Amino acid sequence: MSDTAGKVIKCKAAVCWGAGEPLKLEEVEVAPPQANEVRIKILYTGICHTDEYTRSGKDPEGLFPVILGHEGGGIVESVGEGVTSVKVGDHVIPLYTAECRECKFCKSGKTNLCGKVRMTQGKGLMPDNSSRFSINGQPIHHFMGTSTFSQYTVVADVSVVAVNPKAPLEKVCLLGCGITTAWGSVVKQPGITGSTVAVFGCGAIGLGVVATSSLVKASRVIAVDTNPDKESWARKFGATDFVNPAKLPEGTKIQDYLVELTDGGLDYTFDCTGNVHVMRAALEACHKGWGVSTIIGVAAAGQEISTRPFQLVTGRTWRGSAFGGVKGRTELPGLVEDYLSGKVKVDEYVTHHRTLADIYEGFYDMHSGSCIRCVVDMQH
Amino acid sequence: MSDTAGKVIKCKAAVCWGAGEPLKLEEVEVAPPQANEVRIKILYTGICHTDEYTRSGKDPEGLFPVILGHEGGGIVESVGEGVTSVKVGDHVIPLYTAECRECKFCKSGKTNLCGKVRMTQGKGLMPDNSSRFSINGQPIHHFMGTSTFSQYTVVADVSVVAVNPKAPLEKVCLLGCGITTAWGSVVKQPGITGSTVAVFGCGAIGLGVVATSSLVKASRVIAVDTNPDKESWARKFGATDFVNPAKLPEGTKIQDYLVELTDGGLDYTFDCTGNVHVMRAALEACHKGWGVSTIIGVAAAGQEISTRPFQLVTGRTWRGSAFGGVKGRTELPGLVEDYLSGKVKVDEYVTHHRTLADIYEGFYDMHSGSCIRCVVDMQH
Repeated sequence: MSDTAGKVIKCKAAVCWGAGEPLKLEEVEVAPPQANEVRIKILYTGICHTDEYTRSGKDPEGLFPVILGHEGGGIVESVGEGVTSVKVGDHVIPLYTAECRECKFCKSGKTNLCGKVRMTQGKGLMPDNSSRFSINGQPIHHFMGTSTFSQYTVVADVSVVAVNPKAPLEKVCLLGCGITTAWGSVVKQPGITGSTVAVFGCGAIGLGVVATSSLVKASRVIAVDTNPDKESWARKFGATDFVNPAKLPEGTKIQDYLVELTDGGLDYTFDCTGNVHVMRAALEACHKGWGVSTIIGVAAAGQEISTRPFQLVTGRTWRGSAFGGVKGRTELPGLVEDYLSGKVKVDEYVTHHRTLADIYEGFYDMHSGSCIRCVVDMQH
Repeated sequence: MSDTAGKVIKCKAAVCWGAGEPLKLEEVEVAPPQANEVRIKILYTGICHTDEYTRSGKDPEGLFPVILGHEGGGIVESVGEGVTSVKVGDHVIPLYTAECRECKFCKSGKTNLCGKVRMTQGKGLMPDNSSRFSINGQPIHHFMGTSTFSQYTVVADVSVVAVNPKAPLEKVCLLGCGITTAWGSVVKQPGITGSTVAVFGCGAIGLGVVATSSLVKASRVIAVDTNPDKESWARKFGATDFVNPAKLPEGTKIQDYLVELTDGGLDYTFDCTGNVHVMRAALEACHKGWGVSTIIGVAAAGQEISTRPFQLVTGRTWRGSAFGGVKGRTELPGLVEDYLSGKVKVDEYVTHHRTLADIYEGFYDMHSGSCIRCVVDMQH
């Protein structure tokens, strides 16, 4: 037992007090974990577009004040009653997609979308409908069941997984979201080996899809991005081609260009942009008869995708995935091993570093074209 | 050899002279089949909404004058050079979805959308870019490569299949489109046994989906139609439930009602209406995590489907199929045997009969709520 077990911990956290406001460094009180909860000392966290989406106020379901962050790595400080899946001292990754192994979803064998803590997670609360975070008695909302922008956080025991402690948390924290999402979106579709792939958007997720498609030996991996600087990134991660939609002849749609380039269209496409127009292009770039397009990006609230139904009737499939379809507790340990053995890239995504003191600068990094992932050292 | 082989045949056909015009009975000249073509004496034909769609002028790719019809049955009168797949006297069903077994599509093993005659078929012509139909020297367009509204028609040898002559053509002509489309849409998705299904629209295709879902032992088959008279039809074909969206409480969306009714949504849904709003409802009635919605209906030109991408990201799949994904030459003979052995319903769809002389009345029959399929006796 650590000497903080059972006690309130005072620590620093980046708090967002309201929609559109910058993050502010605060001293927060983190209550001890209740039954089936785990308190984690967060060492590192990535910053992801979903954090910014909620911070900006564009997410109509955003709740404030809140401690954001969902791509973290840390060490278990203490556990509540009944916790058996992790123990004090474990190196862990919090999971915004829980895995209870008991609900209808977990038992279906068809999806990673666990229902166990979904309702309270969406309300920014722990499963008992209260928060473990407070400032001078005022409760602060949790975020995505993880809240990794705090030096200590509390998560449900179904929302955390222990990984090999040999893996540096400053790297594998990124497996908490982006890289895993990309990896799962590819490996969970069995046909990609030997097939053609196009990836729209070369941020961390897009590059992850490029890398994983290359890993499973897709015959051709076309990266698509309007930022010409992304070409070298995409090729470094395994892209065989790079297409810049902004440089096509006037009036040429990217989907038409790709269908022409690939003699009929792609076997698989992925949207990694969150832009609904790009989602449509990704679908329509698919080969008639069998092309499958997967939406990974998160669109802004209220936006809709559309296409002519003929696109589907002639054999294209439109699907999506969340967290890459990955069951975190079951699959993340193996993914960490794959990283340690050199099979899965992680280090290569880290372009920027920040400390908790300047975490909000990391949001500006993210918007610069040169940033793939910014990792924040939460203890300094 | 029949004594008409190699000669022009004069016979009757229903000709549509222009967009929106009624069908008119005409004497047409049907040229002999060229190499790799087959001339068929059509005995019976169904009337399908796709015929009406083109007749009405709503299909922007419609060509006139034209001999419509694509759900026929007949007997091979003569064959052109090189034809080996069928012979004179065979009982055959023309196929608007060809199967050449040689093109990229046929060889892919992933789709039934053969590319062999697609270009010329879309232009209303035979593969040599000319028509076999004429009236006083004026060429008349073919339709969907089949043109079954003529007493004799010519089709490509990849667009026809011989079936067991014991099967009455006045019944199995319907396997040329609707029933097969419905059957294939269900049997080609392996998970339907034991799963819940909702079918939107209880025309011939919708009832076929109901019947086939029941055949493969779906656990629940919910038929959805705004016409209350369809309830008894749906139950007769195997529906366990019938829901009339027009009778829901004010403001209740059909998808929300079905999600509630099924504790989370359907495993599989099918749109058999061609209405893009219904297509959306069918997708959104699917269960989070694994629901699959299939579009079978043909929407009017220019109309688009839309939804929030979140629907897909949370695990729903949107797909479609044409001719049910069925490879006609390979699979129709077996389907005819299934009909003969009582496994697949066909007779039950036939509610109306017409002769060629009053074929256009059959279009009015189709629009009446009481008609499932009207079969036309082409020789009387």
